Amino acid sequence: MSRINRLQSSMRVNQLLITDPIMIFYYTGLRYDVGERFIGVYVPKEGEPTFFINKLFEIPSEYNTIPFEDSDDITSILLANINAHETLAVDGNCSAKFIIPLIETVKLENASLYLEAVRNIKDASEIEIMKEASNLNDQIMESLKEYFVEGISEIELAEIIRKKQSTDPLTGVSFEPIALFSENIADPHGIPSNRKLKKGDVIQIDMGGIYKGYCSDMTRCFFFGDNSELEKIYNIVLEANLNAIATVKPGIPLSEVDKAARSVIEQAGYGPYFVHRTGHGIGIECHENLNVSSTNDTIIKEGMCFSIEPGIYIEGLGGIRIEDLICVTKDGGFVMNHAPKEFSMISL
Amino acid sequence: MSRINRLQSSMRVNQLLITDPIMIFYYTGLRYDVGERFIGVYVPKEGEPTFFINKLFEIPSEYNTIPFEDSDDITSILLANINAHETLAVDGNCSAKFIIPLIETVKLENASLYLEAVRNIKDASEIEIMKEASNLNDQIMESLKEYFVEGISEIELAEIIRKKQSTDPLTGVSFEPIALFSENIADPHGIPSNRKLKKGDVIQIDMGGIYKGYCSDMTRCFFFGDNSELEKIYNIVLEANLNAIATVKPGIPLSEVDKAARSVIEQAGYGPYFVHRTGHGIGIECHENLNVSSTNDTIIKEGMCFSIEPGIYIEGLGGIRIEDLICVTKDGGFVMNHAPKEFSMISL
Repeated sequence: MSRINRLQSSMRVNQLLITDPIMIFYYTGLRYDVGERFIGVYVPKEGEPTFFINKLFEIPSEYNTIPFEDSDDITSILLANINAHETLAVDGNCSAKFIIPLIETVKLENASLYLEAVRNIKDASEIEIMKEASNLNDQIMESLKEYFVEGISEIELAEIIRKKQSTDPLTGVSFEPIALFSENIADPHGIPSNRKLKKGDVIQIDMGGIYKGYCSDMTRCFFFGDNSELEKIYNIVLEANLNAIATVKPGIPLSEVDKAARSVIEQAGYGPYFVHRTGHGIGIECHENLNVSSTNDTIIKEGMCFSIEPGIYIEGLGGIRIEDLICVTKDGGFVMNHAPKEFSMISL
Repeated sequence: MSRINRLQSSMRVNQLLITDPIMIFYYTGLRYDVGERFIGVYVPKEGEPTFFINKLFEIPSEYNTIPFEDSDDITSILLANINAHETLAVDGNCSAKFIIPLIETVKLENASLYLEAVRNIKDASEIEIMKEASNLNDQIMESLKEYFVEGISEIELAEIIRKKQSTDPLTGVSFEPIALFSENIADPHGIPSNRKLKKGDVIQIDMGGIYKGYCSDMTRCFFFGDNSELEKIYNIVLEANLNAIATVKPGIPLSEVDKAARSVIEQAGYGPYFVHRTGHGIGIECHENLNVSSTNDTIIKEGMCFSIEPGIYIEGLGGIRIEDLICVTKDGGFVMNHAPKEFSMISL
């Protein structure tokens, strides 16, 4: 069954509009970058979809199309081609400028639920690609160790990663690579600086690359000499990571996986320092919608792929995060990446 | 008067929400990349603005803030902190997922008109930066000529441009550089390929870089040997470009500038081959909202900056586009870039 057909059979509305270029790519295989211009795929509950597309771009021959020009009024074109008396579901990333003019005329709802429910379940070919993406990420993580030398800066490490993640067969980074040392790790969204590596530092690497259109993502922390305070924290975070992974199986809510990680950290007395969700969905985009958080009661299903990345962040001291990618199987889950994560010190 | 104050004095609603990170940067000077998470700046008609921001990011100390966590419900937080009985203007790039849950409770309108009206008028310091950005773009255009040799590919040229636009003091490209030869120019959104340069080709370069946060953008076409058909078209496009530039002055609608370019091309019999608007606004973003199109009756004001880039595109033959950036003055406008555009042939 095609992705569009899977979407149609899950729809509880009679019409749906996809405007997000990534969702359009997922559902049609066609990648468009139209900038601030409009693009949309109209999907009726039954029948064929229709492309709304600016004539400046390649008109897809395999679809019904409604081509328009820069000088046309998008709202009028949309209203003339949908059923204005029925609810229209629109993807959650559609821009307000296209939505607001419709509010008075059409009842709108968020289509993300339908769109994501299909996309959340990776098929066998997607899982093969994601495994290979993680395999390549493992190899890069291993290859970084030779650069862990006194005096290298966070920015220099991040640039080495960026280059490796852009080398064939990889086509670029999943997100800006993060390389942080010791106290800088305390910011969970830290940006690499000119801070140079010195003995006793912890090195955090959070990185991913794009392979055949799919993202990898992994975080590891390396000890560049002794650091007993962060070593203690490392072992707590590792236990939280392993406990969450062991919990994953179909039929339970994602919030239970978050709880499995969070409870370990809370029991060790570091609860307030685990300041983010435990993980996020991943696939064509590095952050897809499967939040592994305390409030997400979405039921885990076979084929879902998400990160598990508990962390502890202490201002002034530093932090630790250990991140793996899980793929859910019939009765559990497996970790797609394989870089070692047992505590170990780099020999100086 | 601060940008926020200019915005407040132009607002015909009592409350406005900015969620677009670029607009937040323009109005507050603070740059956030929060990915799929929510960020917003609430601006009342009178009084101080308030930041809605996820605790994962740096809380701006100079503003009122309403920090929230991943597990919080954004809709409830917004509704508790705005006046739900009054119209709320929201920027046009706000995501549907944040907008749709508000529809039932709050009357919404598009705030882009207010937000853009202020941002469209560049102040003296912005214009100085944009002039220098165009000056640097001129230098790069000149420096490319040494690479115009038989056998170089479009991709290779685009990569040279990308590197030059990323070299200090430039911080990256305004958009993916376009280098196209002859028949490939017929696609106004062509992507560089492995097509190699040969005698008799026309070379089209459309590029820009980012300098101190502001974009440049310019298109030039070079004749790599004789090509009489495209030479004829070149002179028509150049006349259209010059006629449009001569038309620019405060007080007339942008559509008149489009007409000045389009009428030249129409009179020469190539009307159907000029398939896009004449230009676009430019500043912090390469495409800002000042469409120079037949349907945009926005009145030109001093301080506006936009492109003028007529083109002719003929499938199978090729095309020509000549693009300059205009800054509007008290009684006319000046071109910010200076790369030569008279027809000339490269000596082989």
